[in-house]
Amino acid sequence: MGYTLQTTTDGEFHDVVETTVDALEDEGFGVLCDIDVQATLREKLGEEYRQYRILGACNPGLAHEGLEREVELGALLPCNVIVYEADDGAVAVSAVDPERLVGMADNSALDDIGTEVSERFGRVLATVAGETSAR
Amino acid sequence: MGYTLQTTTDGEFHDVVETTVDALEDEGFGVLCDIDVQATLREKLGEEYRQYRILGACNPGLAHEGLEREVELGALLPCNVIVYEADDGAVAVSAVDPERLVGMADNSALDDIGTEVSERFGRVLATVAGETSAR
Repeated sequence: MGYTLQTTTDGEFHDVVETTVDALEDEGFGVLCDIDVQATLREKLGEEYRQYRILGACNPGLAHEGLEREVELGALLPCNVIVYEADDGAVAVSAVDPERLVGMADNSALDDIGTEVSERFGRVLATVAGETSAR
Repeated sequence: MGYTLQTTTDGEFHDVVETTVDALEDEGFGVLCDIDVQATLREKLGEEYRQYRILGACNPGLAHEGLEREVELGALLPCNVIVYEADDGAVAVSAVDPERLVGMADNSALDDIGTEVSERFGRVLATVAGETSAR
């Protein structure tokens, strides 16, 4: 069983990142965390790695609701969307599957939040695919 | 089944955060992402919430190894350690259980990495408990 929702595009890497951030904002997610994996591995290890970004997306209202229902939920937040150069030269955009992630908490009070985030991420990926030459 | 490794202390909140960051560094983890949940919810929603920090911890060598074995693993990284005011006035420090988190990928090539991070997080929590008046 997969743990991400995925799309792949023919867009240019930085354009795809920008489109992804904009699409997340349109669905109410701020990017609270933006990790440049390539730059981090170069700086810390001197390793050359593909272009790869980890965007930590947070919808404040849904996060607040989730934390009120389960205080430890922050250990699983924010929900990541990754953008990276795929092996075939395309750019992959994958969101962690919110229902599986929140499912780790095994708390049925969180189910509707996982479903809501999943629906929004589905629309984000559809927008990214539509605006950046989906494969 | 829980999804965090936990400890609780009587320390002052900011001291506990600092001790946690130092203990993570001693185990080779940089904090790549530091989300102040209280400040974020105040700013975005005008809601008052307990003091609560999400520290995204990354060991570059282990992350690189994991990404070489499974490119989508970044959707689950970094591994979070949360520090928050518990209901009883104590300060809770909880790390996401790396073995359960990485287990979402259902890829046995990642098992030893999950185990390694778990052992290091165990030592981080022991250090935090030892240095900040464990309950």
